Amino acid sequence: MSYDRNNVFARILRGELPCHKVHEDEHTLAFMDIMPQTPGHTLVIPRAEARDLFELPAEVLTATIVATQRVAHAVRQAFSPPGVMIAQFNGAAAGQTVFHLHFHVIPRYDGESLTLHGAKPGDSQVLAAHAERIRACLQV
Amino acid sequence: MSYDRNNVFARILRGELPCHKVHEDEHTLAFMDIMPQTPGHTLVIPRAEARDLFELPAEVLTATIVATQRVAHAVRQAFSPPGVMIAQFNGAAAGQTVFHLHFHVIPRYDGESLTLHGAKPGDSQVLAAHAERIRACLQV
Repeated sequence: MSYDRNNVFARILRGELPCHKVHEDEHTLAFMDIMPQTPGHTLVIPRAEARDLFELPAEVLTATIVATQRVAHAVRQAFSPPGVMIAQFNGAAAGQTVFHLHFHVIPRYDGESLTLHGAKPGDSQVLAAHAERIRACLQV
Repeated sequence: MSYDRNNVFARILRGELPCHKVHEDEHTLAFMDIMPQTPGHTLVIPRAEARDLFELPAEVLTATIVATQRVAHAVRQAFSPPGVMIAQFNGAAAGQTVFHLHFHVIPRYDGESLTLHGAKPGDSQVLAAHAERIRACLQV
């Protein structure tokens, strides 16, 4: 299937939809997942149009994983979870729901099995506050 | 905590324990997970000593994710799953059981929630055959 330029993350990248941004650079954007599995659940995406890992040029992939590592450090500092999970889903059968490649950075507390998404949207004010906590850790 | 040089993956890297290898290069090694969640479940690890994402130098991380992408292409070609999940756990609370950083490449068939590991070790002959299928796809 071809890349849908009207997917939610493409619209966020164009500024047509809002997000709780925590980081951006030449190649990537990071923001709070609006359906957080746990507090601090953040997404890191490339600016490049790519449905999944199989479509992303290696040079953009490397920029995306380095940004993911940087965001993960900040999420850990901001929320002090005992664990942090990185996950990236390719295809609906793997749990992918938005078809623009994204890495999940998910604070983990209990070692329990992953549910693919939180059951309901997070409160916008809470997400904004969480984004602020993570941004503060990225500025150090 | 410091890196344990006797963890299972360190011993595999030193050749002290066997593995069903599918790929290796200067910076990485990839082999079948012996507790596969689904057929084709493969692990990609850096040769560098790093417990988790927070300890891995960015230049080794980029080599590791590029190898992971390459292995994921081969796993998809070898097993034709409708989905492929990439996962990387940091800390026991996130489901990490071996404390040498590793990326999971997990074929996914149904979109169901992730269980962190298969319930039992895979049959060694089956794993060897799966490794062979993936290696064949890497040689193309």
